[in-house]
Amino acid sequence: MDSDWCYSGIGDSKFDLVIRDVQIVNVFSACVEDGDIAVRDGDIVYVGKMDFDYQAGKTIEGKHRFAVPGFIDSHMHIESSMMTPAHFAEMVLPCGTTSIAPDPHEIGNVFGVEGVRAFAESAAGLPLHVFMAAPSTIPSSPGYERSGFFMEPEDMEELLDLPGVTAMGEMMDFNGVAGGDERLLNIIRAARKRGALLDGHISILSGKKLQNFVMTGVDSDHTVSDPRTAEEKLRLGVAIQVQKQFYTEEFMKFLNDYPVQNRIMLVTDDVPFIRIVREGHLNASVREAIRLGLDPLKAVRYVTINAADRMRLYDRGAIAPGRRADIVLMPDLTEIRPDLVISDGEVVAENGRCTVSLPEYHYPERFFHSIHVHPVEAKDFAIRMPADRMSDTSAELNVIRSDARTSRTKRVIRTLPVRDGIVDYTGWMKMAVFYRHGYKETPDGELLAVAEYRHRYGKEAFLANEVTHKGREISLGLLEGIDGFCGALGVTYAHDSHNLTIYGSNDEDMAIAANHLIECGGGLCAVQGGRLLACVELPVGGILSEKSMTQLAPEMIALQEAIEQMQLTHKDPMSFLSLMALAVSPEIKCTDSGLVDVVNKRFLPLIEEKKEEKTEERIGVNTHET
Amino acid sequence: MDSDWCYSGIGDSKFDLVIRDVQIVNVFSACVEDGDIAVRDGDIVYVGKMDFDYQAGKTIEGKHRFAVPGFIDSHMHIESSMMTPAHFAEMVLPCGTTSIAPDPHEIGNVFGVEGVRAFAESAAGLPLHVFMAAPSTIPSSPGYERSGFFMEPEDMEELLDLPGVTAMGEMMDFNGVAGGDERLLNIIRAARKRGALLDGHISILSGKKLQNFVMTGVDSDHTVSDPRTAEEKLRLGVAIQVQKQFYTEEFMKFLNDYPVQNRIMLVTDDVPFIRIVREGHLNASVREAIRLGLDPLKAVRYVTINAADRMRLYDRGAIAPGRRADIVLMPDLTEIRPDLVISDGEVVAENGRCTVSLPEYHYPERFFHSIHVHPVEAKDFAIRMPADRMSDTSAELNVIRSDARTSRTKRVIRTLPVRDGIVDYTGWMKMAVFYRHGYKETPDGELLAVAEYRHRYGKEAFLANEVTHKGREISLGLLEGIDGFCGALGVTYAHDSHNLTIYGSNDEDMAIAANHLIECGGGLCAVQGGRLLACVELPVGGILSEKSMTQLAPEMIALQEAIEQMQLTHKDPMSFLSLMALAVSPEIKCTDSGLVDVVNKRFLPLIEEKKEEKTEERIGVNTHET
Repeated sequence: MDSDWCYSGIGDSKFDLVIRDVQIVNVFSACVEDGDIAVRDGDIVYVGKMDFDYQAGKTIEGKHRFAVPGFIDSHMHIESSMMTPAHFAEMVLPCGTTSIAPDPHEIGNVFGVEGVRAFAESAAGLPLHVFMAAPSTIPSSPGYERSGFFMEPEDMEELLDLPGVTAMGEMMDFNGVAGGDERLLNIIRAARKRGALLDGHISILSGKKLQNFVMTGVDSDHTVSDPRTAEEKLRLGVAIQVQKQFYTEEFMKFLNDYPVQNRIMLVTDDVPFIRIVREGHLNASVREAIRLGLDPLKAVRYVTINAADRMRLYDRGAIAPGRRADIVLMPDLTEIRPDLVISDGEVVAENGRCTVSLPEYHYPERFFHSIHVHPVEAKDFAIRMPADRMSDTSAELNVIRSDARTSRTKRVIRTLPVRDGIVDYTGWMKMAVFYRHGYKETPDGELLAVAEYRHRYGKEAFLANEVTHKGREISLGLLEGIDGFCGALGVTYAHDSHNLTIYGSNDEDMAIAANHLIECGGGLCAVQGGRLLACVELPVGGILSEKSMTQLAPEMIALQEAIEQMQLTHKDPMSFLSLMALAVSPEIKCTDSGLVDVVNKRFLPLIEEKKEEKTEERIGVNTHET
Repeated sequence: MDSDWCYSGIGDSKFDLVIRDVQIVNVFSACVEDGDIAVRDGDIVYVGKMDFDYQAGKTIEGKHRFAVPGFIDSHMHIESSMMTPAHFAEMVLPCGTTSIAPDPHEIGNVFGVEGVRAFAESAAGLPLHVFMAAPSTIPSSPGYERSGFFMEPEDMEELLDLPGVTAMGEMMDFNGVAGGDERLLNIIRAARKRGALLDGHISILSGKKLQNFVMTGVDSDHTVSDPRTAEEKLRLGVAIQVQKQFYTEEFMKFLNDYPVQNRIMLVTDDVPFIRIVREGHLNASVREAIRLGLDPLKAVRYVTINAADRMRLYDRGAIAPGRRADIVLMPDLTEIRPDLVISDGEVVAENGRCTVSLPEYHYPERFFHSIHVHPVEAKDFAIRMPADRMSDTSAELNVIRSDARTSRTKRVIRTLPVRDGIVDYTGWMKMAVFYRHGYKETPDGELLAVAEYRHRYGKEAFLANEVTHKGREISLGLLEGIDGFCGALGVTYAHDSHNLTIYGSNDEDMAIAANHLIECGGGLCAVQGGRLLACVELPVGGILSEKSMTQLAPEMIALQEAIEQMQLTHKDPMSFLSLMALAVSPEIKCTDSGLVDVVNKRFLPLIEEKKEEKTEERIGVNTHET
């Protein structure tokens, strides 16, 4: 809420802007009404037929187009676009998105509180209204991955004191919370004490465990993937924030028919840059929902007033007097392609283009030096047998089976040939993860990963002790289900810890990819046959570009073409590359710390121990698929 | 929201309370679910079949009764019961009301900020959860009535800093706000700046004026009286809070069918003591709504989750994990007669009786001396002709026509006989209003009504200068439509200024009633034939008794019997007596300052000027009846 809200005089008929002859989507009544809209000082002051005398500073002829409240994205991450907030705004304002609730936990994972502060600063004063959340779960799986920070309750307090930070970002460690982890509960308590909105990421929790989570007061979830999980959460009072990736006709029917709808929202969560360029932003979510059967007026409500109510934005989310003039004009209510976007009463985009110039922001110098890894060699990538099994000719390995469609995986055990003590992974894809946030030296002279250092020595010591030591540690995994891939792909944008992650069919290309990213400060690159095919540099923390959409698009397209050429068969290669190291979604992932059984929260050896009788181990860890 | 909320451990199966085998009304899904409810530290921690081992400190056998969230009254005034908050709680907890949003503007009108502070203190720590509003509109019609205070923006700030005060109470001067009155706008701004909930009383506003009001951010109205006015307000995003007095089958059908329901509530507003005793409280509103066709699950939602959402009580309003355990058990969902009421996990009422003892509170001594009027004589009540018309034998008077049903009135002009310069009002009812809040002496030695003094000299001078001077001023009116009444009725509980108001068929009884109330410190009394028939003393500010329900009931019943004996033909005599001096509801009222044309905001002379041609004046001031 804009607490400095003020208006100058009422009752007279002088307006800054009048939008004439529009079909106004009324989200309070679920109706469309013909009329005009009058705006003064950025506030809507009158809605309806203006059959009285008035003066208008500016008049827009609506020509009977639809006027829809500016879209509000109640759960998302700007960093997923790999762009800075200003360039992101430039891209999504033309799509009709006028307010967002970003959780900057990607930059938070890299730079901690300092990263969030810089990000919040860089998002201030944009015509895109940014209601920032304070990331709550850094790292997302403590003990199973290491990021550049380790979030404590005191950090949550510090973040919520930053201007523009109004919510606790998604609490992702649902098992930790449901299990009573005191640090996590104290983070939630700190946020709750400050009256912050409490966002969740509840994923597979159900039944008693789900209730254990919900009783903390965290009351949203953007991971619901079907009517069944949606309904269980809605019944507990959890706001569901539905992502396009989970839409089905059945799900849309459920959202149409559910009797109490104010806790339903549509959100984008993570949308990569190129998908925004091609499809749009929240408008694409609305369009697809409508295509699959959701009533257009409901779809609009789910991205406007429902989001505003959830976010406690009492002055947005509707075309009504007293609300800020965030208004989108579009020719129809099915394609949802805005041709005029107004934010706070000013035209900010027209016909797909942002029409305002956005403030520049300069990130601190150290944000450009964040890949703290020593150069590598091809031999570092080898999967080596234990010393006592160097003569084995085969080995059983825990393998990550991708469904080539989502980021969910299954654990499978495969027997691979071994030659000279090294596993031959021909036919599988290898992945390698390097801890890249550097090390700090303890008072005892020990080198500790910065995240561990933060946890053990606290804020003051963390800030005082520079990151000077690079790492060499490598964590290896094998992937199945990605067939025919040839070459190597490297990313430093890899949820949530954003460690240096390399995928490849051969160690030589993998080493080239890794070294390229180490040298350029991070990004995404493709290597094949010893040759760099494409690279998108992300110099800010290894996760963000400072380029605009028009500069970045050709690079991204080149990268995507390279990926296609390399025959990465996954439906959504960018998500795949950035999510295989995320030990949050089930079932097995490879982080910088090793191979993780996500469901049972334990490490798995890459190479299984040799056993005579191990049938019980061959059974998959979990058949729960949500 | 309880910002000190905390819980001790989760995940284990030790509970303070388990309610077994209930039909749980789920307000998030609009369903009834069989199950159990587990409570720990006053929080609901589990809802559903408890098919696991657990320990319970206490077990309540639900015996398949309905379990409904404690009712939340999102707009009401405790003072309307004429009881203190503790005695009020004692009375309404057994009805299932566990949370209220009182706007103490009655005591605010009498004692200003000091009154609200005392009231908030007296309401602290009750098992009835009190979320107090800061009265915004004192007096309700500045310039047209005078109360004991005059509210400035700085007072709103002071009130919102009081613990437990979370909202700006109903902004009643809708014409002032819609017309751009700076003092009122600044009061709203002060509240908005503090993030307070902004409540309204919008009554007859419609069209452009309504939008002018709503654009200030004030977004509730509890005066909607039919589907048409309800719909106009809902479409603007105004929360409608429907009172029982306006229920019709048509209105209930509207509330059943309206497509977006989360901004609909049922509220009690003003319910006199005796009606609570006889019918119940919010449960009576729910019962009557259901009787007239509202779906029971919707009716429940309108007094639970919808109210909680409106009031931003994220930890109440539902039976769900993480919500406070405010739970009402009842045998059916039509009669809504609770037989067990739980607040914060403790049983507080059983079978219609409050089972907990409530804290005592002592109001400041000066609160017991608030009727600052000199004793009166019968001749003071005479309607005297102007000096130049003493010989007239008749006169045209502006008369208040009551519909004998509601508090709404119409202006009519009647010709009455005049004898010896005095109007003979036989056949009409006279009303007389005395300013009773006393006078303060200005630096120039002038005596100013305290409310005017507050406005002119500000807070410091107001507090420093004692009320020592009593008044004699009398304001007279005539009422039509109350036929056959004989005697006099006196009240110091008279919205909103609570001036001493006497209704009568003869001046002698009126004088006796007035003097009795002046002497006893205020209250309600009935006089007939020179004899006091009944009196309910309200010594705290002339508006509140300190007696309990069981002590007060016989006195109230005696008064009501006296009123019946006197043949007051109005459908709701207590409302009638307390509302004829309220210059807020249309169309003509009599305040301490004179006869007021409410709709056009102007004074009317009691005796019309003598004119040869005055036909245009004979036309009623307004035919708008909402």
